[in-house]
Amino acid sequence: MRAVDLIVKKRQGGALGQEEISFLIQGYVRGEIPDYQMASLAMAVFFKGMSFEETGFLTRAMIDSGQTMDLSAVPGPLVDKHSTGGVGDKVSLILAPLAAACGCVVPMMSGRALGHTGGTLDKLESIPGYRTDLSEERFADILRSCGFAMTGQSERIVPADRMLYALRDVTGTVESVPLITASIMSKKFAEGAQALVFDVKCGSGAFMKSLDQARELAVSLVRTGGSLGRRVRAVISDMEQPLGRTAGNFLEVREVVETLRGAGPPDLVELTLRLTAHMLVLGGLAPDVDEGERQCRRRLEDGSAWERFLANVEAQGGDPRSVEEPEGVPRAGTAVDLPAPESGFVERVDAYRIGLAAGLLGASRARKEDPVRPEAGIELLKVQGEAVEKGEALCRLHLGKGGNLEEARALTREAYRLADRRQEPSKRVMEELGSDDLGEN
Amino acid sequence: MRAVDLIVKKRQGGALGQEEISFLIQGYVRGEIPDYQMASLAMAVFFKGMSFEETGFLTRAMIDSGQTMDLSAVPGPLVDKHSTGGVGDKVSLILAPLAAACGCVVPMMSGRALGHTGGTLDKLESIPGYRTDLSEERFADILRSCGFAMTGQSERIVPADRMLYALRDVTGTVESVPLITASIMSKKFAEGAQALVFDVKCGSGAFMKSLDQARELAVSLVRTGGSLGRRVRAVISDMEQPLGRTAGNFLEVREVVETLRGAGPPDLVELTLRLTAHMLVLGGLAPDVDEGERQCRRRLEDGSAWERFLANVEAQGGDPRSVEEPEGVPRAGTAVDLPAPESGFVERVDAYRIGLAAGLLGASRARKEDPVRPEAGIELLKVQGEAVEKGEALCRLHLGKGGNLEEARALTREAYRLADRRQEPSKRVMEELGSDDLGEN
Repeated sequence: MRAVDLIVKKRQGGALGQEEISFLIQGYVRGEIPDYQMASLAMAVFFKGMSFEETGFLTRAMIDSGQTMDLSAVPGPLVDKHSTGGVGDKVSLILAPLAAACGCVVPMMSGRALGHTGGTLDKLESIPGYRTDLSEERFADILRSCGFAMTGQSERIVPADRMLYALRDVTGTVESVPLITASIMSKKFAEGAQALVFDVKCGSGAFMKSLDQARELAVSLVRTGGSLGRRVRAVISDMEQPLGRTAGNFLEVREVVETLRGAGPPDLVELTLRLTAHMLVLGGLAPDVDEGERQCRRRLEDGSAWERFLANVEAQGGDPRSVEEPEGVPRAGTAVDLPAPESGFVERVDAYRIGLAAGLLGASRARKEDPVRPEAGIELLKVQGEAVEKGEALCRLHLGKGGNLEEARALTREAYRLADRRQEPSKRVMEELGSDDLGEN
Repeated sequence: MRAVDLIVKKRQGGALGQEEISFLIQGYVRGEIPDYQMASLAMAVFFKGMSFEETGFLTRAMIDSGQTMDLSAVPGPLVDKHSTGGVGDKVSLILAPLAAACGCVVPMMSGRALGHTGGTLDKLESIPGYRTDLSEERFADILRSCGFAMTGQSERIVPADRMLYALRDVTGTVESVPLITASIMSKKFAEGAQALVFDVKCGSGAFMKSLDQARELAVSLVRTGGSLGRRVRAVISDMEQPLGRTAGNFLEVREVVETLRGAGPPDLVELTLRLTAHMLVLGGLAPDVDEGERQCRRRLEDGSAWERFLANVEAQGGDPRSVEEPEGVPRAGTAVDLPAPESGFVERVDAYRIGLAAGLLGASRARKEDPVRPEAGIELLKVQGEAVEKGEALCRLHLGKGGNLEEARALTREAYRLADRRQEPSKRVMEELGSDDLGEN
């Protein structure tokens, strides 16, 4: 087998077989197939795509490129959730303890903030003392005791994805649905999940800007999962506007605490309950999503999700007082309110601009090696559908050390659009896909 | 400027500007732009193409990547010809002295045999003593004294093409018309030609198998030449069957000598005269192609082309007796005739199979580092339109040292197709294109 012949086969629109894809990925990880052949192959895949079966072969070959987490000793259904990334997306921090309170086991490995999107690891680390660099043993222990555990991605898992992603980033081949699918899915399955719910974000603050694009990715995830014999569901959710009322690390932890204590913003609660409900169905803990949602609501209201969260914070080294009384902890020295230029109703708060602005204040990084500030970010005092008087504060900007207040303020101003008439807040859940809906399995 | 942004621009179908292409090629040659970015760009060009203007920018940037031959001290119009390669294509060895005899100056740099096609350098070197490794000074001297000179490609000319070609070869991006155009054209103009005639071969023995493909390349060559302000013409010629009656190195030299002495096969004479006539028009030596062809025919018949050829052989160190009496020189120890399986007329001799068979006998190489044998090759005793009796020899196989007679014989047998009725031999010249015909300059 020669790599160049497989490149030409893909270039001509042919489908690569399991052995061919395995030859390419194994050869690449071993350094036998050079970057330039993988780059031209990735570009050919960009143009010619891959069938769901091929994408499954790719996912499998990528999983096999490294170690996999063995969580077989942990009892209970191992179900995880992955979000394609958005602004104010603190769902994981609520969903994981909630799913655990309902009987799921959630082995969650997360990433960091980059560009306009936040990262779960940075949010968790804004809790004083919280550690995300768990050993495999400690991770399994906490999983057993709390029902969920949160950690960073291990270097030993899916090395092919790290290599391929770095290559795609500099060769103009990031925006390929099969390559995105295999990248996301290989990591999640290698991390020990048996079933997966995907939150495919759609809109200004998301990677997928249009519903068509989001749908293409959601279908690819669900059908590729099906071709691998895995239970996978996808929810397409609206990311035109930030989720909830905060964007920033500890600001979001505070909102998580409020939500777990029963006082969360409706859009955040709606989406989190729905995603968690899909996990219960995949885990065999609920017969359908509506019943799953009812179970989730009970566990949120009776405080058991909150208890799980507290137990996890303690287990991972975090200071429980900092979440029990979050008003006391990291607080920006400078907090500036943005006044409404006129009276009216908030018609729209643009997620992309708010994400960028929160990043500029210090909540995210422009380059991987930059630090983030726990206290930096934006509180949305007014969101879609709410009335505001001229001069009243629309939002509060919390400036982190080294942040850029002026640029952030200008972006935030542009993000808000006011109108004379009230606009009904949009629903977060746009579409839900399971393999059943696609006539598979 | 970042390479990745230019890759994405091309991937999305955008046109790259002169500075952008120059940035990419310069950066690549300097090692600042890595192979993997160039590979994904080449694949994007494969799918999205390039305008003639972009192809011109690319050609120009490639020329500028190295040194160019300065032949300004050589008087007379510098016109060259390039063939895309075929079987039995000994046109250069006749055309160069003929064009010189008509007043052109032909600075010819050629390549070697590879796969099923022959190479002009290998043919010339089958003349005992003939040297093709001329210094730049010696090349200019011979050009001045003989009107033409034959040499190999200098390492210092168009380094970008050598790098790019080696990369395309292993990344599945060879078959891209704009990349082929820039590769061919940059070398030829860097070698000092002022105007160029292209012989675009079409058919079984050629790189371009269909007339549509050949036409696409011919139009690209002529229009890209136009966008560079250069005079360029293209002839599409039939390569379904070998040109003339020989394929092999010294066998072809013998046929060249016969042709220069007035006894060449009609198809070879037809194509050579026409290509040379186009050179005269480009060099301002004939008002139109038909008049150019009449001049060429006179110079072929009056022996002046033959005299030029002899002078060049002597100037480049070759033994003049070996071409004056070619029967005496390299001769295969084993010559085997292939008998006709039945009586009839030759309907077709497949160029690709004859080329492969001649290569197997020792006339070409499978890998660049293999040697070729001067004496090896195939004489076509019967060609299209000729009658043959059962058992009479169709062709003669000359086995070179280390050659594979059995495989060559099987291929040659497959190459011949006989029929009951006589088929009129096809014309070699299929189409002729000049920039005038395309409504350009």
